[in-house]
Amino acid sequence: MNIPRTSYPRIVIIGGGFAGVALARKLSKQEVQVVLLDKNNYHNFQPLLYQVSTGGLEPDSIAYPIRKILKNFPNFFFRLANVEFIDTEKNELRTNIGSLGFDYLVVASGSKTNYFGNSEVEKNSMAMKTIPQSLDLRSLILENFEDALLTSDLNERNALMNFVIVGGGPTGVELAGALAEIKKGILPKDYPDLDTRMAQINLVQSSDCLLKGMSAEASQKAEDFLEKLGVNVWKNLRVTNYDGSVATTNGDIAFKTQTLVWAAGVKGALIKGLDSESFVTRGNRILVNEFSQVNGFENIFAVGDIACMVTEEFPTGYPMMAQPAIQQGTQLGDNMLRLLEKKPMTPFKYKDKGSMATIGRNKAVVDMKNFKFQGIFAWYVWMFVHLFFLIGFRNRMVVFVNWVYNYIRFDREARLIIRPYKEKLKKHKK
Amino acid sequence: MNIPRTSYPRIVIIGGGFAGVALARKLSKQEVQVVLLDKNNYHNFQPLLYQVSTGGLEPDSIAYPIRKILKNFPNFFFRLANVEFIDTEKNELRTNIGSLGFDYLVVASGSKTNYFGNSEVEKNSMAMKTIPQSLDLRSLILENFEDALLTSDLNERNALMNFVIVGGGPTGVELAGALAEIKKGILPKDYPDLDTRMAQINLVQSSDCLLKGMSAEASQKAEDFLEKLGVNVWKNLRVTNYDGSVATTNGDIAFKTQTLVWAAGVKGALIKGLDSESFVTRGNRILVNEFSQVNGFENIFAVGDIACMVTEEFPTGYPMMAQPAIQQGTQLGDNMLRLLEKKPMTPFKYKDKGSMATIGRNKAVVDMKNFKFQGIFAWYVWMFVHLFFLIGFRNRMVVFVNWVYNYIRFDREARLIIRPYKEKLKKHKK
Repeated sequence: MNIPRTSYPRIVIIGGGFAGVALARKLSKQEVQVVLLDKNNYHNFQPLLYQVSTGGLEPDSIAYPIRKILKNFPNFFFRLANVEFIDTEKNELRTNIGSLGFDYLVVASGSKTNYFGNSEVEKNSMAMKTIPQSLDLRSLILENFEDALLTSDLNERNALMNFVIVGGGPTGVELAGALAEIKKGILPKDYPDLDTRMAQINLVQSSDCLLKGMSAEASQKAEDFLEKLGVNVWKNLRVTNYDGSVATTNGDIAFKTQTLVWAAGVKGALIKGLDSESFVTRGNRILVNEFSQVNGFENIFAVGDIACMVTEEFPTGYPMMAQPAIQQGTQLGDNMLRLLEKKPMTPFKYKDKGSMATIGRNKAVVDMKNFKFQGIFAWYVWMFVHLFFLIGFRNRMVVFVNWVYNYIRFDREARLIIRPYKEKLKKHKK
Repeated sequence: MNIPRTSYPRIVIIGGGFAGVALARKLSKQEVQVVLLDKNNYHNFQPLLYQVSTGGLEPDSIAYPIRKILKNFPNFFFRLANVEFIDTEKNELRTNIGSLGFDYLVVASGSKTNYFGNSEVEKNSMAMKTIPQSLDLRSLILENFEDALLTSDLNERNALMNFVIVGGGPTGVELAGALAEIKKGILPKDYPDLDTRMAQINLVQSSDCLLKGMSAEASQKAEDFLEKLGVNVWKNLRVTNYDGSVATTNGDIAFKTQTLVWAAGVKGALIKGLDSESFVTRGNRILVNEFSQVNGFENIFAVGDIACMVTEEFPTGYPMMAQPAIQQGTQLGDNMLRLLEKKPMTPFKYKDKGSMATIGRNKAVVDMKNFKFQGIFAWYVWMFVHLFFLIGFRNRMVVFVNWVYNYIRFDREARLIIRPYKEKLKKHKK
């Protein structure tokens, strides 16, 4: 990679997610050279991916060009690259576009879907961690309805209109809610010749409550909201396999479905070379100290989902969400500047800003430190907070216009099959 | 296809473009059954595709769900289908999802890129007739700049930053203008470590003027605007071949380029079974009479790009553009209702509403019947007209927000490589 070496120390950041971008912003205009590597040329606002899948938003409005985030930073270099190996002895990365030395390395590679070793589920299910995946899911949902029109086989039609979402975390809950709204508001209008009451939305959660990590009130209320919307909530049920047509469970029930969305968990996106058993812990996360330093290294750090910083309050690390990632990235930025000035670093302190999930029109649950509320006010708060955290004025405006429109018109206009998914699948299987 | 036969006559429309949609709208709420077939579930506003390719707009805001256009029409059926054969004797269509009988058939299948038989150009060049194609071009342009950063081979870098657009019609002119704006406004900011002056935009036109079909003033002014923007305009030059790295011409020059956009012409998208030499004419268009009836048939019609209606003023048929398509569709709707009431049909009369093209910020050319103008006022008119003809309030709002933002900020934020194109290409070639 032809990036000039200057007198400034070189900090390489792997990953332009919440953590990586927060860090890079903090380091901008400082006397350091920053190289940010990412597989995509955009930062992606993951919390709204489910709205892309359900036709409520276009993908371009929840993504933001990474180059633009840091455009006025003269010592900043972005490269579209896939990091393949971290050589911790030589302080060097190997990527698909060549190798790169570093003085400091920050791994902010995030997380990926965790199939818990089940390769059949991995092959046949849909995930919703990236924009292309979300678009594939959007296409599949719409293609299913189109296909349901064509078949006279009742079982097949049922399977096409039966949606199974595995995982009752925020992603699963929000997707289930959005699908239920589509069933109620859009299907009857778009498919008057289809009995859309047959569309079933199943949310399967292995434990006894939804939105684990939020309060009992939020969890219960989310469940109530979903049931009111007609979602079948299955608790204490685990999907054990899915062959592309039937999802088996550890209970008495099996689901005949053409669409299984796997939102049951994530794991750290480890990179070879920095995956030693001595510091990789549960969920493929890298153990770091309170300064985000990877155990055993002075100059290698990890932040965000990939990092596991153990505290008394969070004995298995902070939740794999935007807030800890942003705060760790920002804090590490400060600490790196201190480090370079030979000042002592300050330990990370997590400010819990609360958590929230939306279930559908006028329905959300919000947990703040001393204040929990649910319903329409929570829904407004949810929207405001998500607009606020979106990067870019244009994105905010476009998302806002879409939300206002969707709200007033009970509609989701981005129900477009731009890249058919089933075709791709067929080609893939050949 | 399980569409119930009712007592109403069945009108099947192939294609949900400008002509097909205008026709279906006219027939809505009448005593007919309408079946609309299209390969996509959306209507696509082709005149703005070049803005998708150049990161100015998201694809979702220039597409509109076909089902939604006709949602309050009880006898309307849409099917996502590829028509493979028209059996004119049995009055039946064969499609990838089964066959379908018709009482009346309207072919509004539009046009596709015309490579004039050059399969190597077809294989190696980029087209811009569909949304996926436009997105592929967007990805390729951005990937080229990313790759240009990586190479130290000057020839390769030149080829990556050299864009050749073949065809000086509205598509070619508008794309060249938009690329020139990117070169000027965005590249220097996004790629400070790249000498973006090396980016070349070449527009190649086989005849001696751009925007054939518009006035001499418009043509000359468009050329002036482009040259001011730094576009190399090549007239009286024909690209004879392109092997993926060098474009040869009938002149002394050859272009070393990684990106050749073929906008040199279109031809009718003929369907087997309705492709007899007796009525297919120049450019694969179907000869129709003044009622849009295909020569030799009472109940088969063609409208839009695929139809060639010869008049004194237009001896080779109306131009393959939105206006004639919309007007023919609307007129045919009226005529079909007359036909069903056994009233005489009225012949088609084209109202020339003028034509226009935009070249870049503040620059457009407009030809109206008695009034020709160019420059900033033309540009405002261009924007207003395009917003007006976009279907859907949400689309208009989102496009408007984007345009205002892009104008004020000299920016195009949708510069996202969501589905990398080069990867796809590699897989394809394997």
